[in-house]
Amino acid sequence: MKKTKLVVAGVGHVGSYVLANAMKLGLFSEIAVLDKKKGVAFGEALDWRHATALTYMPNTSVKAGDYSECADADVIICAAGPSVLPSEKDEMPDRAGLARTNAAVVREVMAGITKYTKEAVIIFITNPLDTIVYIAENEFGYSKGRIFGTGTMLDSARLRQLVAENYSIDPKSVTGYMMGEHGFTAFPVFSRLNVQGFREKELDSVFKGKEPLDREAFRQKVVKTAFDVLNGKGWTNAGVAEAAVTLAKAVMLDEKSIYPVSATLHGQYGYNGDVALSIPSVIGRNGIEQQLEIELDEQETSWLHESAKSIQNTMASVKTGKSYIQA
Amino acid sequence: MKKTKLVVAGVGHVGSYVLANAMKLGLFSEIAVLDKKKGVAFGEALDWRHATALTYMPNTSVKAGDYSECADADVIICAAGPSVLPSEKDEMPDRAGLARTNAAVVREVMAGITKYTKEAVIIFITNPLDTIVYIAENEFGYSKGRIFGTGTMLDSARLRQLVAENYSIDPKSVTGYMMGEHGFTAFPVFSRLNVQGFREKELDSVFKGKEPLDREAFRQKVVKTAFDVLNGKGWTNAGVAEAAVTLAKAVMLDEKSIYPVSATLHGQYGYNGDVALSIPSVIGRNGIEQQLEIELDEQETSWLHESAKSIQNTMASVKTGKSYIQA
Amino acid sequence: MKKTKLVVAGVGHVGSYVLANAMKLGLFSEIAVLDKKKGVAFGEALDWRHATALTYMPNTSVKAGDYSECADADVIICAAGPSVLPSEKDEMPDRAGLARTNAAVVREVMAGITKYTKEAVIIFITNPLDTIVYIAENEFGYSKGRIFGTGTMLDSARLRQLVAENYSIDPKSVTGYMMGEHGFTAFPVFSRLNVQGFREKELDSVFKGKEPLDREAFRQKVVKTAFDVLNGKGWTNAGVAEAAVTLAKAVMLDEKSIYPVSATLHGQYGYNGDVALSIPSVIGRNGIEQQLEIELDEQETSWLHESAKSIQNTMASVKTGKSYIQA
Amino acid sequence: MKKTKLVVAGVGHVGSYVLANAMKLGLFSEIAVLDKKKGVAFGEALDWRHATALTYMPNTSVKAGDYSECADADVIICAAGPSVLPSEKDEMPDRAGLARTNAAVVREVMAGITKYTKEAVIIFITNPLDTIVYIAENEFGYSKGRIFGTGTMLDSARLRQLVAENYSIDPKSVTGYMMGEHGFTAFPVFSRLNVQGFREKELDSVFKGKEPLDREAFRQKVVKTAFDVLNGKGWTNAGVAEAAVTLAKAVMLDEKSIYPVSATLHGQYGYNGDVALSIPSVIGRNGIEQQLEIELDEQETSWLHESAKSIQNTMASVKTGKSYIQA
Repeated sequence: MKKTKLVVAGVGHVGSYVLANAMKLGLFSEIAVLDKKKGVAFGEALDWRHATALTYMPNTSVKAGDYSECADADVIICAAGPSVLPSEKDEMPDRAGLARTNAAVVREVMAGITKYTKEAVIIFITNPLDTIVYIAENEFGYSKGRIFGTGTMLDSARLRQLVAENYSIDPKSVTGYMMGEHGFTAFPVFSRLNVQGFREKELDSVFKGKEPLDREAFRQKVVKTAFDVLNGKGWTNAGVAEAAVTLAKAVMLDEKSIYPVSATLHGQYGYNGDVALSIPSVIGRNGIEQQLEIELDEQETSWLHESAKSIQNTMASVKTGKSYIQA
Repeated sequence: MKKTKLVVAGVGHVGSYVLANAMKLGLFSEIAVLDKKKGVAFGEALDWRHATALTYMPNTSVKAGDYSECADADVIICAAGPSVLPSEKDEMPDRAGLARTNAAVVREVMAGITKYTKEAVIIFITNPLDTIVYIAENEFGYSKGRIFGTGTMLDSARLRQLVAENYSIDPKSVTGYMMGEHGFTAFPVFSRLNVQGFREKELDSVFKGKEPLDREAFRQKVVKTAFDVLNGKGWTNAGVAEAAVTLAKAVMLDEKSIYPVSATLHGQYGYNGDVALSIPSVIGRNGIEQQLEIELDEQETSWLHESAKSIQNTMASVKTGKSYIQA
Repeated sequence: MKKTKLVVAGVGHVGSYVLANAMKLGLFSEIAVLDKKKGVAFGEALDWRHATALTYMPNTSVKAGDYSECADADVIICAAGPSVLPSEKDEMPDRAGLARTNAAVVREVMAGITKYTKEAVIIFITNPLDTIVYIAENEFGYSKGRIFGTGTMLDSARLRQLVAENYSIDPKSVTGYMMGEHGFTAFPVFSRLNVQGFREKELDSVFKGKEPLDREAFRQKVVKTAFDVLNGKGWTNAGVAEAAVTLAKAVMLDEKSIYPVSATLHGQYGYNGDVALSIPSVIGRNGIEQQLEIELDEQETSWLHESAKSIQNTMASVKTGKSYIQA
Repeated sequence: MKKTKLVVAGVGHVGSYVLANAMKLGLFSEIAVLDKKKGVAFGEALDWRHATALTYMPNTSVKAGDYSECADADVIICAAGPSVLPSEKDEMPDRAGLARTNAAVVREVMAGITKYTKEAVIIFITNPLDTIVYIAENEFGYSKGRIFGTGTMLDSARLRQLVAENYSIDPKSVTGYMMGEHGFTAFPVFSRLNVQGFREKELDSVFKGKEPLDREAFRQKVVKTAFDVLNGKGWTNAGVAEAAVTLAKAVMLDEKSIYPVSATLHGQYGYNGDVALSIPSVIGRNGIEQQLEIELDEQETSWLHESAKSIQNTMASVKTGKSYIQA
């Protein structure tokens, strides 16, 4: 009988947390751990194998492996490649440099995976996320919809948490998300943000907020809070790993949950195969089952195009022979 | 109304995993994160605060803080201080050096905690564990039973996992543990080891094992597997963090579960206040509610005394004015 | 140390499911089971005590008891009293008769509880819910905010599920709720309903729905689906028990989650102490921490007043010496 | 991609709890509910469908169906058929009558299932359990090992709970089980019972027990506690449903956990195809992967043969053309 299987590719700061979260799900019978540093993959798998002997742990079979593990995988979560580094001044890090490095990483990873499967759902975390997803989706003839990135799911969690904290409520009671690039130019869709139906303009009168829900201020706060984590601990991993595992669960249980994830656009907002960015999408057993084009207001539309442009600039910097950008 | 509260003191490799596991328990209303590096504590707490906005996460209130957070804590898990470092040759690391460093750390931590509480149950992970627990238990007039260390709970998980792996079964179906020092001289209590009632001498005939259950070989394997993790990934954290959180749950739910944890002996095996080491103990709302003296066979008894001696040597190296070792 | 404690009062079809859900939470150290039928309380507690010996179960201490168990309870969930019975024709059941019976039940229960505590958060499920909550809140001098009813939280779950099913998506991706009476006159707040920001009027064009989102049709469907369960299996319990336990968790973890629950209005929508009904409310460690008055459109406002009137009629039928309805 | 799927056949008192537990696992993408009473299956499925709209629930797709649902099922849990009824005097209920009724039920169920699959793992709960399992295993040419019954897993949980309660410890810290018939003649394997290595004869001196661990007394107590539940609430379901779901998880995750479950013996204890009863067995993705013959002491051996005889008597009462008993 087919066993449920996850592959975690890359177990640095982020991938190791993906593994940690996945081991506790009770959803996967097998988890294979891949890393360029064989010893790290081996050590991570072994450490968790020990943990399976503890009281409440499911006996998930966890082991280090190579790309052949992907052959019967249901889901592959890829956190391979280096991350953004902390910076003293909250300044723009070298995304272009990171892009070149990780473009090579994702091409190597996809070459490895596609030797064994084009069916498993692949969830990318590697940055710069949208460029990485674009390469993975468009260069390897992979099954449609089966590749996407955590995208602005993390930025969105930060937005909801900031809104919730401002009003002293549970972030799970906030409905809202960021769209666009995972990173600097991500923007909150304020026109659709709501707290159990209370809209953007009503929140300050209903709840005693710590400060008014100013669009620009909160947009900045989302960027700043990411840097606060990065500069505080040196990396970010807890939130994004939880996002990835939540997506993996939505896939495995075919939940048809709607999350803002990154994939190449096909007709939405005037983009057609020329950029990958995050828009709300239905996630099920086949990966992205529908990408949803929500009407934005003027400011948000302008933010969207700026964000797409920013991604396309990064994409341009990693072009190979293929010319991605047709616009 | 009293809210349930955990304090995690020290969020390096180990403490950050304790935090990760604790955040997913749905058991604590509040978690406070303490670290000498204020930025790290802040970053870790903030990263998890973001994660609470994701679908299945409880809205645990997580924040960085100082020792005053301990005032209303139910449980404090301490993973402060540096860890054992990987070594090329599986050789004895410098436990004495580590002991001196972390003896200072634990004294500082206990001074900090006891300004605010002597009631919270404190679970130590800091190494060398037994020496650290001894200091914490005996120098600060803390409530009896409320301080203990994860001790050989991790070594025991490794033993069960190795036995289970040898026979291709679930480690949760193995009953068994290591006693003594958390570290090199820990020893498996083979005479009591069983797989759902099948005893040590029966296992090889009932199950098709990969190799015979040789006492010395498996004792070595437990030590070796710890080094395999350490040398593979550079530290060990997954197993021990899961152990600590399992103990915290046993405390909070007053489970009266029996786990091998480290605390000062009071009459067991001929030791009386002169050494802390791991023996099976009943864990409930008041911490250690009973320490259980199990009859060992000749070999195990000899191993126990060697282990106690080893711990006492380490303890001697961190003596202050007080003379610990009376034996 | 204070242990976390739940009391389940009344373990018929609904209360037994509350117990089942609560036993698996890993949140309560103790659960006491109360029932007029002592044997049933005893049998339910004992059955679950057996279950605690199974692999993944927390060792929650569960036992039958009497009202004295409430003295140190954190949360009390009351499902005492008979339920609505199935009817052949989806016709109006005898709510007034049920109201008279259960008004006596709730008065007895509250007399029992208040001998021991006025601090525990009490969550009512007993029907007719709004009338029961009104009596409990207003006749016993209980701490403000600490009594409420699951109210339209279940009706709301049904609404979200129906909307989600229509569009083949995860109901957790739907934001929306019913307000008013728990029962026939509950009404969906369509003007605030959204699917990750997509509003009522946009849904049919974005998703391929099975049928158009007609207000009246979907309002009827929510009522009908309740009857479908009731007539299918003879009672409803799974959904409402899950709702109650979700609220208990929000209380214990002080989540500040917003749920539509039933409590006496104090100034909202023109009602002041003269009716209890469900409006979105912030739920935390102190029970209801804020009741939220959301602006309704004309149709919804009219539905609200009809619903309030209907509840007041039921309330009038159980009046004692005190005159509740001053309007 | 293959979705994980459970079928629950029969949703009376027991099956409805199996469904409740399974819905909360987060392990199955689909659950199909079957019952002779179509309305009950429909109502149960619908009630849980509503519950999926609540905060922490996975969006498992749950629906009523018929045997064709078994075609792609991974696991089928069968609780069809009437149960033992409470009796005033703790007297032997009419097992033979129940056997005749449920032999017909299981034949109908197996005929239904085998039209669609011989691969899904089938877990039986229907009583008299051992006879039911024997029929299902031996009359339909089903894949070897893929059919078994919860057997004495529940009796074993009761034993551990009683031992744990006697010594005021967590039942998860007790290793032990009952073997033989699920019912009156089940017997505790005292010679193998242990509390973290402490053996039968040591327990009374180590722990302050409420009463001495007398073999006959505790054997009686296990039978009595079952009747206490049955007579208290009118049926037993919580414990056995949890047992069944624990087994389903062991199957799905291929845990290789050892549980005492019922299946036809093939050479163990001198029985060869002539009786089904519970002995410790390794449970994995293929169902029973190994049946383990543990050496019993004289008293236990005698209990085993009595128990086998009792089952064979029941089996004889439901013989059809085939002659089961060859001994």
